[in-house]
Amino acid sequence: MRLDKLLKPKSIAIIGASEKAGFGGDTTRNFFRFTKKSEKVYLVHPKYDTVLGHKCWHSLDEIDDTIDLTVICTNQKTVIPLLEQASRKGCHAAVVFASGYGETGAEGKALQKELIDKCAELDIALMGPNCAGFANYVDDIFLFAFETEERERKGNIGMISQSGQIVLAGLDLPGIKFSYVISSGNSANVTVEDYIEFLVNDPDTKVVAAYYEGVKKPDVLERALRKAAQIRKPVIILKTGRSAKSKELASSHTGSLAGSDGAFRALLKKYGVIEAEDLEELFAHAKMFSALSEYPKGERFVFMNVSGGEAGVTADLADMSGITLADLSDETKEELKKMLPSYATVNNPLDMTASLGYDSDKLAAAFRYLFKDPGVDSICLGYTITPEIWDTTVDYMVEAIQMVSNDADRKPIFWLPFIEHTRHPKSAQILEECRVPLLFTGKYGLKSLKKLMDFLKFEYEDTPASLPEKPFGKKTRVYTEYESKMFLAERGVPVVPQEIALTAEEAAEAAERIGYPIVLKINSKDIMHKSNVGGVKLNLMNADEVKEAFESIISSGRKHCPDADIQGVLVAHMLKSGVEVIVGVKNDPQFGPMIMAGLGGVFVEIFKDVQTALAPITKKQAMDMIRALKGFPLLDGYRGAEKLNVDALSDFLVAVSDVAAQEKHVIKEMDINPVLVTKEGVEMADALLISYEEEE
Amino acid sequence: MRLDKLLKPKSIAIIGASEKAGFGGDTTRNFFRFTKKSEKVYLVHPKYDTVLGHKCWHSLDEIDDTIDLTVICTNQKTVIPLLEQASRKGCHAAVVFASGYGETGAEGKALQKELIDKCAELDIALMGPNCAGFANYVDDIFLFAFETEERERKGNIGMISQSGQIVLAGLDLPGIKFSYVISSGNSANVTVEDYIEFLVNDPDTKVVAAYYEGVKKPDVLERALRKAAQIRKPVIILKTGRSAKSKELASSHTGSLAGSDGAFRALLKKYGVIEAEDLEELFAHAKMFSALSEYPKGERFVFMNVSGGEAGVTADLADMSGITLADLSDETKEELKKMLPSYATVNNPLDMTASLGYDSDKLAAAFRYLFKDPGVDSICLGYTITPEIWDTTVDYMVEAIQMVSNDADRKPIFWLPFIEHTRHPKSAQILEECRVPLLFTGKYGLKSLKKLMDFLKFEYEDTPASLPEKPFGKKTRVYTEYESKMFLAERGVPVVPQEIALTAEEAAEAAERIGYPIVLKINSKDIMHKSNVGGVKLNLMNADEVKEAFESIISSGRKHCPDADIQGVLVAHMLKSGVEVIVGVKNDPQFGPMIMAGLGGVFVEIFKDVQTALAPITKKQAMDMIRALKGFPLLDGYRGAEKLNVDALSDFLVAVSDVAAQEKHVIKEMDINPVLVTKEGVEMADALLISYEEEE
Repeated sequence: MRLDKLLKPKSIAIIGASEKAGFGGDTTRNFFRFTKKSEKVYLVHPKYDTVLGHKCWHSLDEIDDTIDLTVICTNQKTVIPLLEQASRKGCHAAVVFASGYGETGAEGKALQKELIDKCAELDIALMGPNCAGFANYVDDIFLFAFETEERERKGNIGMISQSGQIVLAGLDLPGIKFSYVISSGNSANVTVEDYIEFLVNDPDTKVVAAYYEGVKKPDVLERALRKAAQIRKPVIILKTGRSAKSKELASSHTGSLAGSDGAFRALLKKYGVIEAEDLEELFAHAKMFSALSEYPKGERFVFMNVSGGEAGVTADLADMSGITLADLSDETKEELKKMLPSYATVNNPLDMTASLGYDSDKLAAAFRYLFKDPGVDSICLGYTITPEIWDTTVDYMVEAIQMVSNDADRKPIFWLPFIEHTRHPKSAQILEECRVPLLFTGKYGLKSLKKLMDFLKFEYEDTPASLPEKPFGKKTRVYTEYESKMFLAERGVPVVPQEIALTAEEAAEAAERIGYPIVLKINSKDIMHKSNVGGVKLNLMNADEVKEAFESIISSGRKHCPDADIQGVLVAHMLKSGVEVIVGVKNDPQFGPMIMAGLGGVFVEIFKDVQTALAPITKKQAMDMIRALKGFPLLDGYRGAEKLNVDALSDFLVAVSDVAAQEKHVIKEMDINPVLVTKEGVEMADALLISYEEEE
Repeated sequence: MRLDKLLKPKSIAIIGASEKAGFGGDTTRNFFRFTKKSEKVYLVHPKYDTVLGHKCWHSLDEIDDTIDLTVICTNQKTVIPLLEQASRKGCHAAVVFASGYGETGAEGKALQKELIDKCAELDIALMGPNCAGFANYVDDIFLFAFETEERERKGNIGMISQSGQIVLAGLDLPGIKFSYVISSGNSANVTVEDYIEFLVNDPDTKVVAAYYEGVKKPDVLERALRKAAQIRKPVIILKTGRSAKSKELASSHTGSLAGSDGAFRALLKKYGVIEAEDLEELFAHAKMFSALSEYPKGERFVFMNVSGGEAGVTADLADMSGITLADLSDETKEELKKMLPSYATVNNPLDMTASLGYDSDKLAAAFRYLFKDPGVDSICLGYTITPEIWDTTVDYMVEAIQMVSNDADRKPIFWLPFIEHTRHPKSAQILEECRVPLLFTGKYGLKSLKKLMDFLKFEYEDTPASLPEKPFGKKTRVYTEYESKMFLAERGVPVVPQEIALTAEEAAEAAERIGYPIVLKINSKDIMHKSNVGGVKLNLMNADEVKEAFESIISSGRKHCPDADIQGVLVAHMLKSGVEVIVGVKNDPQFGPMIMAGLGGVFVEIFKDVQTALAPITKKQAMDMIRALKGFPLLDGYRGAEKLNVDALSDFLVAVSDVAAQEKHVIKEMDINPVLVTKEGVEMADALLISYEEEE
C-alpha cells in the first residue's frame, strides 16, 4: 500500500475535470479554490483544452510525467480502463468517487471485487469507491468533492470517515483544524484501519479522529492502536454498531460488516483509545486534544465562573461527569479572598463575582496563585459566550489569560460554555491563540475533560492482543466438566483433584485418594444441567455414602436421559463455600479471545455486573477488572467480613487468559462457573468448554 | 401578592432613568428599544427634564397617576424611601436591581429582612433585590437590564431564573421565543415558586422553564406543580444542588438554602415535572415543547437520514436514550422500497439516500405513507445543517414538509442535527413556520424526545403531597422494635403477633398464645444491634426452649451492656423465610415524608437499588416503585421460582406511606428492615422508628 502516493502525491491527474456540476466540476473547482500550490496537477478531459483557465489534457497518455495519484471523477464503467492507463504512467494511487459497488446489490459487490483485484494487480492504493475524496492540509492538496466555506483549516487533527457527509460537517465546524480529512467511502482497498495507521505514524498529525462502521483489517487496527498507545498519540473513535439496530444498518450502508462490538470496545480499552458515543463527542474530544498545548499534570480542576448560578451548574456537571475538583490550599484561599467582595466565599467552583471577572489584573493574579498551588492541575473558566458579551465581559478574561500566557509555571486553562451560542468563530480563534481549548457545550465539554483524564491516567503495558491468524473451524464440540477442567489443568490452570469412576467401587477408591468430603457428578457430554436430573451428590463423607450416591446418580441419569451416553461419574473434593465468581472466555472472529469476570448469580444476571478484556491480560489488568466490578466490596471485606483472596483470583484470571490466548483457534467459548473465592484462594467448581474442531 | 401589578403593569415608573451606563441608563434604553407601546411609562430622575427625548419627572410625587409598578434603578440606600413614596401612588409592585442584600454577609441579610418587612407592610410584590428585571413579551413590556440583540422573541415559553446571566443566555439563543423572562435575583419577596405559579396559570404561557437554586416556599411550589399536572402544562426545572458541592455553593450564592435534593426530585416526579440536568437541557426541552404544535399519539419514532452513517449514529443514540423505534408495516416498507434504489434496504432509522432526500415529491409521498402507518407516531429527520447546505439539500426536505403541512392525518415531525453548526437562525425560523421543532444537537436532542415521551406517559393521580405545616421538633426519641411495630399496628399496618415478656415464665406463656416457632429478641431502647450482644434467639419450638432462651438473652444483654435499660424480651412468631425488602420513611423539612423501598442487603448497600416517592402514595405508584427496582426479577419468579406476592408488598407500602403522611410531625425516620416477601404475603421482621418530640 503506497499511502504516501495516495495522500502525499507529488503529481496528480484529475480525470473528468470540468466546469460543470458533478464530481468532475466540483473537485476541480474546489482544488483551485483551496490549493495554493498547484504546479503538479494535470486536468484530463477528452473534450476540453482548458478548464477554469487551466490547461486540460485529452488523456493520461498525453502527459509527459509520472503520475502519483489519479483522481477519477468519471462513472463506474470508466474506472478499470483508467486505472490501467494510469498504471502505465507509474501511478500507484487513485481516488474513485463513482458509486454502484459494494454498497449496492450482488452485482455491485462483484464489481467491487473486480476493482480490488485490479488494484492488487497494478499495486494501486485506492480511496473509495463511493467516496468524497480527501484534503491534505499539510502539503496543501485539496481533493474533497463537497462544497465548504472558505476558511483557514490547516491544523493537527487527522480525520477519517466512511461518510463524506460527516467529513463535511467536521470541516464546517468553527475553530477546528486538520492535518488530513479523508472520506474513505466503501474502504474497499485502502481501509479505515490503513488510514488510522498512516495518521498514527504521521508526524504532522497530533490527534486521530475516526468515524467507523465496520472493521475490515483487525490486525492493522491492532497494530496502529498499539503504536498510538506506545507513542501516546490520542486516537478518538466513533463506531456505530453499539446497538443491535445500528449493527443491522452498518451492514447495509457501505457494505462492511460491523464486527463484534464487545471485542472491538475491549480493543479500544486495551490501548487507551478514546471512544466517542456520537458525532458531537467525536469532534468535541478531537478539538480539545488538538488545541491543548500541554497536558495537565493531574486530575484536579479549579472551575471559575462569573455567575454563582453557573458555578452551581458546573458543580453538578463535574459531579455527573466524574471530574475531580481541586482542594485549594489555605494560602490560595486567603489570596483569592482578598480579591473578592467581603461577603464572598472562596469555593471550587469559584464564583468570581464582578470583582475578579471584570478585572484583568486581579484575574491574572488569581491565575498565578492557582499556578503556584500544588493542589491544582488545571483551570477551567466557565462562561456562556453570547454574541453580545464577547466584546465586553469576555475581553477582561481573555486579557488576563494573555497576561499569564508565557508564565513558566502556567497550567492548562480550558473554557466551558453552558449554552451553545453559535460556536462563535471569533472566540474560537482568539482562545486558540491563547492556547485555551474552547470546549463544546455543557455535558459534551465535561465529557471531553473526563476523556482527557482517562487518557492521561492510562498506562499501557506492552502485551499485544492475540488476534486470530485464520478463520475458526465451523464444527464445534462440547467438553464434559471433567474434560474441560483437564484441558485447563494441562495448560497450567490450578484444578482441584478429580477422577472419573465408572463403577461404585472405583468411585469409592477415588474418594479415598482425593479425600473427604466428596462430591459426585454425572459424567456425560449429553447432560448439561446435571442437577436437574439428580446427577449431583454433595458432601459425601465416607465410602458407603459415595457408593450409594454413585448408584443413585447413574440410575437417575438413565431414567431422566435414557439416550444419554453416561460415562460414570466425576469424583472430586467438595469445595469450601466462598463468594461465587463467574469467569468466562468468548472468542471473537476479528479480535480473538476475550476474558470475562463477574460475581455469580443475580449479580451477573440481573445487574450485568461484568468486566471484559481482550486476552491475554496482565496481572494489573486482572486486578483492574476485579476492582471495577460494582460488587467488588463483596470480595473486599464487606460488612466487616474477612477480605477474600483477590490476589489469587487475579492470578487465576491471568492463567485463564493465557490459555485463551494460546488456544485461540481451539476455544470457542468457556464458562468457569462458579469459581469459589475464599480467604485462602480460589477453586474452580465447574467448567464448560466449547471448542472449534478442525474440519476433516 | 399582586403579581399582575408586577408582571402586567398598566403604568410604570422607572426611577433613576438616565442616558448613562448602569442600571438606570440600560433599563431606560432597553425599554425604548424593545417596547413598542410605551404610553404609560414615567421616567423619574431628580436632575433631568428629559431622558432619551422622553419627558422625565423629578420625583414620583410629581406624577398625577396611579403607578402599578416602580422600577428602582438607584442604589440600595434609596430603596425603602422610594417604596414608601411609590406606595402613596397606589403602587403594589417594584423591581429592585440594587445588590448588597441577602447575597452578602450578616448586614446585607438584615437589610433584606427590613426590605421584606416593608413590602409586607405596604403590600408590595417585589422582584429582586439583586436581580436584572424581566420582560413581558405578551403585553410588550421590556424591563430587563442587560444588553441583548434586537430580534423578535414573542412566544410561549415562560422562563424564570435567579441568575440574570442565565436569562441573558436564553434570550440570545436563536429560535427560542418567550411569553415572559424573569430574573428573580435574591427572590426575597416574590420567589421563584410564585413566578412558577403565575406562569402555570398564565394562558399565554405554554411551557414553564425555571432555573433554580433553592426552594423557599415548598407549599406554593407544590400547589403550582399540582396545577400544572392537572392541566398538563409542561414545566421544566433545572435545580442545582444535586451534588454536595453545588449545594454548598447555592447557600452562598443568592442566599437561599438548597432544600433536600431527594425530596425535591421526588416532588418533581410526583407531578410529572421535566427535570433538566444542565442549562443546555433546560433550553433544549423548553424549545421543543414550545415549537411542538401537537403531541405524538405514542412513543414510536421513525428516523430518516440522508447519510447511512448518520442513520447508524441515530440508531445508537436512540438506543442509549431509550427512544422506541417504530416497526414499519409491510405496506409502508413496500411503498418506501419503490422509492429507493433497488439495492437499498428499508430500515428504521432509514437511510433515505439521494433518491428520497433530494426529491420533495417523493419525500412528501413517503411522509404520507408514514402518516397512514398505524405503527408510527412521529417522524424525526436527522440532518446536520452546515451553513453551506441550508440552501441546497435542506430545501428539498423543507419543501416536502411544507407539502404535507396541512394533511389531516399529519404526525409530528422533528429535526435532529448531529453536530452543532450555528443553531442557524434561518433554519430555526423556517422549521418553526413548518411546525417542526429543531432539536438541540445529538444527545441533547434525543434527551428532549425522551422527556417528551415521559411527559406524555405520565398519568397524574390526584393525591396532594403531604407537606409539613410547622417546623419539626428538635428533640428526637428512638423507639424500641416493640414500640415501633405497635406504632404501625395501631395505625393499621399489619404486624405479626408480638408481646413483651419480663420473665421467662411470661415469655413461655406468650409463646403459647402466639404459636410456635417463636423468636425472642432483647427489648431495650439502649440496644440497637440486638444480634451483636446475643440478644436474639430464633426458631424456638417449645416452652422449655423459650425459657432457656429468655435467661440466656437477659444475661448476655446484661454482660455486654451493663448500663442498658433492659425491659425483658420481645416474643414473636418466627417468620417464614422470604425475599428481604427494606421499607423506609424519611421526613424532609420542606416536602414532608418520603417513602423508600429496596431489596435488602447488598442490593441496597452496594447497588443502591432503591426507589423513593413522596408520601402518601397510591397503589399504582407503589407498584411502579416496586417494578422500577433493578432487582424486581427476584420478586417476580426469578429463574423459575414462584412469583412472590408483589400485590401485598404494594399494599404494605401504601399503608406505611399513609402512616407517614398522617404522622408527618411525629416520624423523623423509620426503617422497616427486613420486610419478608413470600408467595403468601409480606411480614415485618423488624422496625425502628425515630420520632420528633414536642418541646416542653
